[in-house]
Amino acid sequence: MQALCAELGQTWHREIPLSAAMGIEIVRCSATELSVEAPLAPNINVHGTAFAGSLYAVAALTGWGMTWLALKAREIDASIVLAEGHIRYIKAVRGSIHCVCRFDAAAQVRPLERLTDSGRSVLVLEAVVTTDGEEAIRFEGKYAVRRR
Amino acid sequence: MQALCAELGQTWHREIPLSAAMGIEIVRCSATELSVEAPLAPNINVHGTAFAGSLYAVAALTGWGMTWLALKAREIDASIVLAEGHIRYIKAVRGSIHCVCRFDAAAQVRPLERLTDSGRSVLVLEAVVTTDGEEAIRFEGKYAVRRR
Repeated sequence: MQALCAELGQTWHREIPLSAAMGIEIVRCSATELSVEAPLAPNINVHGTAFAGSLYAVAALTGWGMTWLALKAREIDASIVLAEGHIRYIKAVRGSIHCVCRFDAAAQVRPLERLTDSGRSVLVLEAVVTTDGEEAIRFEGKYAVRRR
Repeated sequence: MQALCAELGQTWHREIPLSAAMGIEIVRCSATELSVEAPLAPNINVHGTAFAGSLYAVAALTGWGMTWLALKAREIDASIVLAEGHIRYIKAVRGSIHCVCRFDAAAQVRPLERLTDSGRSVLVLEAVVTTDGEEAIRFEGKYAVRRR
């Protein structure tokens, strides 16, 4: 798992320049949870808080990374593309961006079965940014997955 | 209007570092339409197409800028904060990101009245990215506006 986590972080920074510009770093990483952090400075907006676009991009990457980890852990080689995203901004983020996405294996049984059966599926994942222990944003992404 | 358009572009690049990192530039700008462009290179992803997070951030900025322009044109000084965003990714973007947001003045009469009456309102705007003349993404943002 440690090797996969390192590969994920390197892939982001090498192949998605915006992830490097945002300074996103992996904090905790397993087959069921991905936690990332990004500093405020490169992600600040006109209000001196985290930019809505950065919050979305961090959440979308966290969901994508979680999907990638969960599939790799199952030795499934697949392309993962975000098909739809929805985000609610609940509270302004005045410091570092902390984002967590959990892979609920029970909820993903059916979508993963569809992937095995047809080679394609859609996995819906949520990612949450918290600030001072409170929910700041909630993101839901629909990731279209296609077996290679 | 020209001065407002210049001010908008400068505000983005000066106060939102990510907008500079994405290379967003204003192409056309009026009180009813805002069109922007961003090059692919800083916004590329693992698939060699535009990163979902960049597409969202460009669309969210375009909607924010359009709201800002429409309010400035009416001499309304207000803070504008994205409260909710939804995006559908329809087609991969393999070149520059072209995004357009139109301000439908007729549809915004009621929300603007609420702003005048109570000092607060929510303006819903759509932004669209096209590629090769076809719709690539459709974004809807709910912008919470508060009179200063």
